[in-house]
Amino acid sequence: MKKVVLAYSGGLDTSFCLKYLQNEKGYEVYTILINTGGFDKQELASIEKRAYELGSKEHVNLDIIDLYYEKAVKYLIFGNVLKNNTYPLSVSAERVFQAIEAIKYAKKAGAEAIAHGSTGAGNDQIRFDLIFQTIAPQIEIITPIRDLKLSRQEEVDYLQKNGVDYSWEKAQYSINKGIWGTSVGGKETLTSNQTLPESAYPSQLKKEGEEKVLLTFEKGELVAINRQTNKPSENIIQLEKLASAYAIGRDTHVGDTIIGIKGRVGFEAAAPIIIIKAHHLLEKHVLTKWQQYWKEQLGNWYGMLFHEGQYLDPVMRNIETFLTDTQTTVSGNVIVRLKPYHFILEGIESPHDLMNSQFGQYGEMNNAWTSDDAKGFIKILGNAQAIYSQVNNINYD
Amino acid sequence: MKKVVLAYSGGLDTSFCLKYLQNEKGYEVYTILINTGGFDKQELASIEKRAYELGSKEHVNLDIIDLYYEKAVKYLIFGNVLKNNTYPLSVSAERVFQAIEAIKYAKKAGAEAIAHGSTGAGNDQIRFDLIFQTIAPQIEIITPIRDLKLSRQEEVDYLQKNGVDYSWEKAQYSINKGIWGTSVGGKETLTSNQTLPESAYPSQLKKEGEEKVLLTFEKGELVAINRQTNKPSENIIQLEKLASAYAIGRDTHVGDTIIGIKGRVGFEAAAPIIIIKAHHLLEKHVLTKWQQYWKEQLGNWYGMLFHEGQYLDPVMRNIETFLTDTQTTVSGNVIVRLKPYHFILEGIESPHDLMNSQFGQYGEMNNAWTSDDAKGFIKILGNAQAIYSQVNNINYD
Amino acid sequence: MKKVVLAYSGGLDTSFCLKYLQNEKGYEVYTILINTGGFDKQELASIEKRAYELGSKEHVNLDIIDLYYEKAVKYLIFGNVLKNNTYPLSVSAERVFQAIEAIKYAKKAGAEAIAHGSTGAGNDQIRFDLIFQTIAPQIEIITPIRDLKLSRQEEVDYLQKNGVDYSWEKAQYSINKGIWGTSVGGKETLTSNQTLPESAYPSQLKKEGEEKVLLTFEKGELVAINRQTNKPSENIIQLEKLASAYAIGRDTHVGDTIIGIKGRVGFEAAAPIIIIKAHHLLEKHVLTKWQQYWKEQLGNWYGMLFHEGQYLDPVMRNIETFLTDTQTTVSGNVIVRLKPYHFILEGIESPHDLMNSQFGQYGEMNNAWTSDDAKGFIKILGNAQAIYSQVNNINYD
Amino acid sequence: MKKVVLAYSGGLDTSFCLKYLQNEKGYEVYTILINTGGFDKQELASIEKRAYELGSKEHVNLDIIDLYYEKAVKYLIFGNVLKNNTYPLSVSAERVFQAIEAIKYAKKAGAEAIAHGSTGAGNDQIRFDLIFQTIAPQIEIITPIRDLKLSRQEEVDYLQKNGVDYSWEKAQYSINKGIWGTSVGGKETLTSNQTLPESAYPSQLKKEGEEKVLLTFEKGELVAINRQTNKPSENIIQLEKLASAYAIGRDTHVGDTIIGIKGRVGFEAAAPIIIIKAHHLLEKHVLTKWQQYWKEQLGNWYGMLFHEGQYLDPVMRNIETFLTDTQTTVSGNVIVRLKPYHFILEGIESPHDLMNSQFGQYGEMNNAWTSDDAKGFIKILGNAQAIYSQVNNINYD
Repeated sequence: MKKVVLAYSGGLDTSFCLKYLQNEKGYEVYTILINTGGFDKQELASIEKRAYELGSKEHVNLDIIDLYYEKAVKYLIFGNVLKNNTYPLSVSAERVFQAIEAIKYAKKAGAEAIAHGSTGAGNDQIRFDLIFQTIAPQIEIITPIRDLKLSRQEEVDYLQKNGVDYSWEKAQYSINKGIWGTSVGGKETLTSNQTLPESAYPSQLKKEGEEKVLLTFEKGELVAINRQTNKPSENIIQLEKLASAYAIGRDTHVGDTIIGIKGRVGFEAAAPIIIIKAHHLLEKHVLTKWQQYWKEQLGNWYGMLFHEGQYLDPVMRNIETFLTDTQTTVSGNVIVRLKPYHFILEGIESPHDLMNSQFGQYGEMNNAWTSDDAKGFIKILGNAQAIYSQVNNINYD
Repeated sequence: MKKVVLAYSGGLDTSFCLKYLQNEKGYEVYTILINTGGFDKQELASIEKRAYELGSKEHVNLDIIDLYYEKAVKYLIFGNVLKNNTYPLSVSAERVFQAIEAIKYAKKAGAEAIAHGSTGAGNDQIRFDLIFQTIAPQIEIITPIRDLKLSRQEEVDYLQKNGVDYSWEKAQYSINKGIWGTSVGGKETLTSNQTLPESAYPSQLKKEGEEKVLLTFEKGELVAINRQTNKPSENIIQLEKLASAYAIGRDTHVGDTIIGIKGRVGFEAAAPIIIIKAHHLLEKHVLTKWQQYWKEQLGNWYGMLFHEGQYLDPVMRNIETFLTDTQTTVSGNVIVRLKPYHFILEGIESPHDLMNSQFGQYGEMNNAWTSDDAKGFIKILGNAQAIYSQVNNINYD
Repeated sequence: MKKVVLAYSGGLDTSFCLKYLQNEKGYEVYTILINTGGFDKQELASIEKRAYELGSKEHVNLDIIDLYYEKAVKYLIFGNVLKNNTYPLSVSAERVFQAIEAIKYAKKAGAEAIAHGSTGAGNDQIRFDLIFQTIAPQIEIITPIRDLKLSRQEEVDYLQKNGVDYSWEKAQYSINKGIWGTSVGGKETLTSNQTLPESAYPSQLKKEGEEKVLLTFEKGELVAINRQTNKPSENIIQLEKLASAYAIGRDTHVGDTIIGIKGRVGFEAAAPIIIIKAHHLLEKHVLTKWQQYWKEQLGNWYGMLFHEGQYLDPVMRNIETFLTDTQTTVSGNVIVRLKPYHFILEGIESPHDLMNSQFGQYGEMNNAWTSDDAKGFIKILGNAQAIYSQVNNINYD
Repeated sequence: MKKVVLAYSGGLDTSFCLKYLQNEKGYEVYTILINTGGFDKQELASIEKRAYELGSKEHVNLDIIDLYYEKAVKYLIFGNVLKNNTYPLSVSAERVFQAIEAIKYAKKAGAEAIAHGSTGAGNDQIRFDLIFQTIAPQIEIITPIRDLKLSRQEEVDYLQKNGVDYSWEKAQYSINKGIWGTSVGGKETLTSNQTLPESAYPSQLKKEGEEKVLLTFEKGELVAINRQTNKPSENIIQLEKLASAYAIGRDTHVGDTIIGIKGRVGFEAAAPIIIIKAHHLLEKHVLTKWQQYWKEQLGNWYGMLFHEGQYLDPVMRNIETFLTDTQTTVSGNVIVRLKPYHFILEGIESPHDLMNSQFGQYGEMNNAWTSDDAKGFIKILGNAQAIYSQVNNINYD
């Protein structure tokens, strides 16, 4: 019997796929859920149970949080990646890694086919397919939802007809959770002029007042919170708990999808936003001007290609090498103050801080050069402009 | 008698220069204050009075708010310019324009020399000198504060000795105000790890609750607030009044100075921050991906050269032309919600909005292409990666 | 009867299409040849004759050389566009403009469909389709060669069966000629390790010795050759005649196609190469460093998007505006020496030349600044590096 | 007695310095010549002899060819660095390394001062001073030529007065030779409109006809010529011998100096030009589109900062890491044909060649996708343009 591996989430779409692949396509279906931080134990158990009820030959819950941090999140921090200056790639990055692990599982399982539940109108289909066809071009890709374009009701009906009678309550919003943020789509995000109501966000404001947090970075990685060291992935989870209570890190991302239409999605990502902004501030103190310039160029590009599923282009590995090499001196503390809905970066402490008053204090005193040095500097710095101005007889009036 | 034009602000440093240039250097001193929005009528009158008391031959208060908007602020908005992703160039841009107007005034007045009160440790000296030496290389630049490196007390003593006996209260912070924001420097900003206290900011939190504001842009310019049309420079002033009551737009800028040291300065800039973020959001809806990409490249570069006083490099004019050309479709409304310390961009309305559901709704339904189109797209989009992977026999395990 | 407009070149592929569209698809076929400089009068007459013999309802030869210069070639010169540092976009640019004029003709003619003879393995199909579907999405695109994947012999047989009995000699190379260069593909270019033999190039070496040519540019455009003024498009044609006799401007382009595979093509383009290199040299003398930097960024990007058929993206118009704005001072003479297979740029003369010895002669004498100015300049220029080095205690041994 | 280390070349300027530093400044002078490939044994011996005759306390000839290749030339090849698309940084790169070795020598020797013979009008002073003041800020920099602004005759007279009576024939051109090319400045290069005569170039045309050369690269480095393996620095020297006989690689560089004026210099660099062009061609076959794009960005920037003496900015190390990481697959042969004054790149052979006909042959046959795939690809590729066009009702007539 032919084997197919299905990326299964427990929702209506992939539950439909699970039944459909067995009954209509005659496959033995292996289901896999790849957890990047969005599911707790109880949820995983309940999804596993449902998979078997729906006829999965074998269900696997794969935890890749550490791998995902090591191979993706780390570089998103190094690169201060915020797509369109806003979005920490909460969904895009995890989808790519779910695709990689799913196809590797399918290869190992000797599956003839692999299936996912994406529609034909989004970015996820591209992330899945691009990864699948690159890593295992011999494995067929099956996408029932994209191909059949069924309505929600048609899916429910099909399942009922096949003896599956769950109550599929229609969630008002489609929510995707991972260690690097939670996306919230639907209703308002389908318009251009409305924003999600407070109630749409999974984490609600729970604290008033304010709270200081000390973040410690070592070579660009978050190694401690309030001087408590831990592995970075765990620190992200802890900071999210702390900061989401202040309803920090909510926004709406508007972007160009891979398929050329504009897309809009809400998200909450307290830890990612705070970490990126804190990391960026530390870099402003310890990196030179041109290090910052080129990090921004390459970081943004990395985010764009990642978002668009081009993660396997070898330029991505080259950029990761570059970013890592820039982090040698990105060590120190960042002092953050959490407040309802926003936060303040108070400052940093680092042995690599280039704001060094032995040389001169900005606007105050110059110890390392004289007034004449400054004049000579400006004179020659202005040569090109002065020559241009005189040769071309520019009139400034 | 030799004439010098002094850029005069009424403060201790330039008051010292005014006396010094007369008494020690034998100049007839013409004073000029170039207002970019930081001084009200009463302040201007009092500075004028002081100038004459200190011996100015002629004092001029020059209002360049509209010119400054037209030639600088407008492009900073078009380019969404936030230096180091934070700072709206509140001081840098206005200093450049004060320099231009001062030297033009000196030329017209037939002055042999021009003077400013900057030290040798900051960016302002460079902005002044670069502009002066380019526009009028024949006019000598005199900088008593930079040359003499006097302490505050020495300046006060000198003035007293010369019969000037004002009480120069030492302000805790050095504050610079203009239409495009107010900078606040001193004490905490001279460290790396402290931030300004609330009390250091000129505008204090005055409102609780929240308030909606509708901003209307036409070809990138802010032409109306809450449907009340007015000239853009006036709209900036009005929005500042509205929004500063919520203590919005405060932050600390950390950057690389032109002289190679790191500098840090606090600022409050409610209107600039809201306008730039609103304008940017509108652009995300109406510009194509590559328009946004290149605008970001050129906008950031424009901000950097502007900040560093290289405003007269002809590439700046080329970039302005580019930015203007991108604004043809940047028209529409942006809905903003003001809250204490922060704001929410609710969304936009524009006839040029490219988020157009006739084509397909992101993640929901594809009207303009089929499932097979999507598959063909992804197949070919992945060619390069697939070829690379196979030719090089990449192992993904 | 349904109308189709066919982009017709007189070759086997489009001749097959012409018959096929009539006989198998039942269309009334209107043929059009859009001349960008590759066809002389006699060739045009013979193609027109053949079109009618094969059943064209109406054949049009459209000369767009001037339009093509004005809307495309001009900007390729302004931007010094050489794809992959080698290729002047000889075919890519003209294909885009042929597509634009063909679809405009089809709209005016009220055609239901438009057809081209491209295969499914190249860039041209994309240039045609992208332009067609953007400008007239309602007009159907028909591509018999791409769809049927026929062999050459099958096409000849089909035509014979339908009473067309030309002798279609198989050319060893596929040659495409236009005002901006001639591409030569086939045989060696299908390998990676061979190059075209001399005999494959349409223009052969006809002159020995050397010859001086004076090129005059005005705002970036070539307005005179050897002081003989003429319109730029005519000057390109004249320079090609002069320089191709020296077999100048031959090379092989290796590039990434839009469909992700690598492609290779030979070309000869004496005038384009000389003009771009001469124009670039003039710019090195009259533009500032950062003007050159950003021109290179935007020019290369313009070439890439143009090559990939994305000519209608509005960013292309923005870039054209930028490039035009940079050309204000790009006026003067460039002295070129032609020799067999290569040429030498002797130098330039321009009133805007920034190599101005009043200021200082490179490496010789500094008139505009002193030794102390230079020392002050270097001292402060080195601040950032020195601070970095000391703070981080860098060991250079 | 105070020690000074003098970078000594045996020429008039540094011979003057050698005497001047002893007699006028009372220094014990240590001379050092740092050879980057420009001096043979005989020349070195004769310079050493002269140094001692002029009173050098100790003269050292330091051969850094291999170090210079390993730390500089290698990356200039990886980055295909040609300043302003022309100049392989023949002088700039070696000057930086001479500066580094000189100051390290001075530190080790416990010298109080270091001296060089540059004028105040060129780039070299900046390269020397920037490196010196960063690596050893405590060591004083002495620059007699820059400070005294003596004429040639005054230097000769001074030496004569001090008993030195060499015949200092005035060379018509100032020539600088190293492994990475020879610069030739003077006379014509001081104008904008003349070029060096053939006779000015050290290596003259010695061969007619043509000759094939096979270059073998491994991870971006030239490891063999005509299948003869050798260390890369030796291969450069051998290729220079072979190719300079054809008078290949001559050109004139026009550029923006660090001090803001324009500069112009002739050069011959047969091996550098051939190696860079061959390496670049190989990369076009083995790297992806975006690898090439970002290599070009970073390579050009690397060349610019290197040229401008900013070699110690840590971003340079980051870029080197990036460039190295891109070279993993840059292995294979490049077939070059040498001819008088120019050369032809015939093609490449590489196991990493991405021009792989299993996938499809450009313009010929598509094996890896169907006609429908191509149509789907183009349909969706055009979405953004089509939406823009329709939303904005663009008129293409």
